[in-house]
Amino acid sequence: MPAFAVAEYHDRVQKTKQRMSDAGIDVLVVTDPSNMNYLSGYDGWSFYVHQGLILSIDADQPVWLGRGIDASGARLTTWLDHANIHAYADDYVQSTTCHPMDEFARLLRDLGGRRANIGVELDNYYYTARAHAHLTAGLPDARFHDATALVNWVRITKSDQEIDRMKNAARIAERAMEAGVTSIAAGVRECDAAANVFHAQITGTDSFGGDYPAIVPLMPSGERTSACHLTWTDEPYREGQLVVLELAGCYQRYHCPLSRTVVVGQPPQKVRDLAQTVIEGIDTTLAAIKPGVTCEDVQHAWSAYIGKQGLEKNDRMGYSTGLSYPPDWGERTASLRPGDLTILQPNMTFHLMPGMWFEQYGVEISETFRVTEQGCETLAHYPRQLFER
Amino acid sequence: MPAFAVAEYHDRVQKTKQRMSDAGIDVLVVTDPSNMNYLSGYDGWSFYVHQGLILSIDADQPVWLGRGIDASGARLTTWLDHANIHAYADDYVQSTTCHPMDEFARLLRDLGGRRANIGVELDNYYYTARAHAHLTAGLPDARFHDATALVNWVRITKSDQEIDRMKNAARIAERAMEAGVTSIAAGVRECDAAANVFHAQITGTDSFGGDYPAIVPLMPSGERTSACHLTWTDEPYREGQLVVLELAGCYQRYHCPLSRTVVVGQPPQKVRDLAQTVIEGIDTTLAAIKPGVTCEDVQHAWSAYIGKQGLEKNDRMGYSTGLSYPPDWGERTASLRPGDLTILQPNMTFHLMPGMWFEQYGVEISETFRVTEQGCETLAHYPRQLFER
Repeated sequence: MPAFAVAEYHDRVQKTKQRMSDAGIDVLVVTDPSNMNYLSGYDGWSFYVHQGLILSIDADQPVWLGRGIDASGARLTTWLDHANIHAYADDYVQSTTCHPMDEFARLLRDLGGRRANIGVELDNYYYTARAHAHLTAGLPDARFHDATALVNWVRITKSDQEIDRMKNAARIAERAMEAGVTSIAAGVRECDAAANVFHAQITGTDSFGGDYPAIVPLMPSGERTSACHLTWTDEPYREGQLVVLELAGCYQRYHCPLSRTVVVGQPPQKVRDLAQTVIEGIDTTLAAIKPGVTCEDVQHAWSAYIGKQGLEKNDRMGYSTGLSYPPDWGERTASLRPGDLTILQPNMTFHLMPGMWFEQYGVEISETFRVTEQGCETLAHYPRQLFER
Repeated sequence: MPAFAVAEYHDRVQKTKQRMSDAGIDVLVVTDPSNMNYLSGYDGWSFYVHQGLILSIDADQPVWLGRGIDASGARLTTWLDHANIHAYADDYVQSTTCHPMDEFARLLRDLGGRRANIGVELDNYYYTARAHAHLTAGLPDARFHDATALVNWVRITKSDQEIDRMKNAARIAERAMEAGVTSIAAGVRECDAAANVFHAQITGTDSFGGDYPAIVPLMPSGERTSACHLTWTDEPYREGQLVVLELAGCYQRYHCPLSRTVVVGQPPQKVRDLAQTVIEGIDTTLAAIKPGVTCEDVQHAWSAYIGKQGLEKNDRMGYSTGLSYPPDWGERTASLRPGDLTILQPNMTFHLMPGMWFEQYGVEISETFRVTEQGCETLAHYPRQLFER
């Protein structure tokens, strides 16, 4: 039932335990749903309640602990022995008198963690300040370590099987982008174009269906393109408006993000020029990517090129991507930005996202790339241009 | 630009300050995106980075603090004075050396919060353990109070304007459910039915478009209906399968959840009987709802009825719903369960969700209701039955 062969999960667990060992961690509590899926296969929209995996350094597989009504989902979607699936009572859900992390503490004590070095994902969405307070109170003799992104750093280099998933996601991203670009026209409501994008994301291809991306399509228009994280309205597109489409295809929780910019009608010359510079900048940057260069080097290739054109963008222009759940399809490890000295290696995958946002408008054209043995390849194949509709 | 008149936001701020005052809180830090939207109108998919509002008890409006590239979104979607929109540098994003909450601490000090009683949403998804560690370290002389759900409890009683949004959401929920029910048939891929549901959710009606719901459509089939939080696969539906549809319509971030169960072909008698009991149980429960009864009373009406039919379900069977962002369309305040003594009042809105899950299958039929002056009304109007397709 899980998406990969059991051997692949064993390999992931092994790599995670190596990092735990390096960090002096005996037991890891994994609450990031992406990391839970990566290690166990668990897939369900249950991350709005507290849940997690417990991985002991001397165990062959993690233990799943979640809400009672989700345990059947764990049995159906993970490779774990059913004896390793534990549930807490429904009374714990959003209670003001008890907390699911009390149950985690109890289980950790049962598993020999009373005096352990325990790693927790301290800055993960699904590990709240109160969760930490309850877990530490329940294990007063344990030592807690910040293991934020420990599993994420294992995830940064993909297996060939994972790359296959991402290439399927790329096929879906191409179709979703085509649905968006061809739906946009003067007089069409933004929500109707967005609906077509959603439909293409989920219906997928004739050979495989789509999964829900970790972020909904971001489709601001007009002045709203100056703000990169707005969605859509139910207003009709108007002649002369810019529309930015940032979306992803998703297959078995693996993402391929992709962005393009569309003009309703004729673009002003400044927008045409900006898009041209961004496209050339992306070409130049992709040509500079190969194993051995750093994330910072990639950003330098970009900023050097656009600097010659009189433009400046020195902040983050990309990040590692792959397996994910809402609210982010980024992996929150390496970023393409000054100061990030992560060395690129084959089968790392990044969303190269050099968005250019100004006071009144913005242009986004982006690609997801895989580092190859010699250089890199973009996963999606969709015309890299400014679209006029 | 925000979804409501400024007077409505002032009213919400006033009610929030009353609760702050009752709790001895001078300054509230709001990181729940639903609460941010409720108080400021802010709407953007930027909650994957740290952001929040700061509401001082003596201020007329909250202060927004978020990532630099999202400040333009705050200017476009909130009613706040632009002087009250602050941004932190992009270096803070997913950094291992600095944290956005350092900037929150700095701003709180500037706003006079050095020795304040500061309320934080300690158990909210978007307030991590590390966020709390940085905020408290930056304000060593302040006193911190757990203000989880403080704003949520203001939200539980809706204004008439909010009810109007939820009724629009109900129109969308009806259409999305119809798209799902009519798409399901033997041989149709689950992803294709799900794509039609998504399309209906976003395209909305001729009069207004849809917004993305806080939870994707949950559409398990066959044995997977025993697990309530699974989504869809790309396998075709097979004759005899049960399919559960739990979905919502969403309008301007207001939700109307709705569930129905579909059988591909003829249902076994036990499923037909179970569905009939659930429907009668819902009828009986809705008839018992009126201002003055408690959440626990509602659950008792249900369990007494189905108990007579030889069934048992004593856990949570509903919760307050309304304005929301991923990962949950529940408000995380009152629950329809034993022990919850919240007294129902007019314009409270709940998702009545008496899911019945067994070893091999489950049946879900649910309604969203509003408490009226005399009783209650369901928001959506969709046949309350087991569908055969």
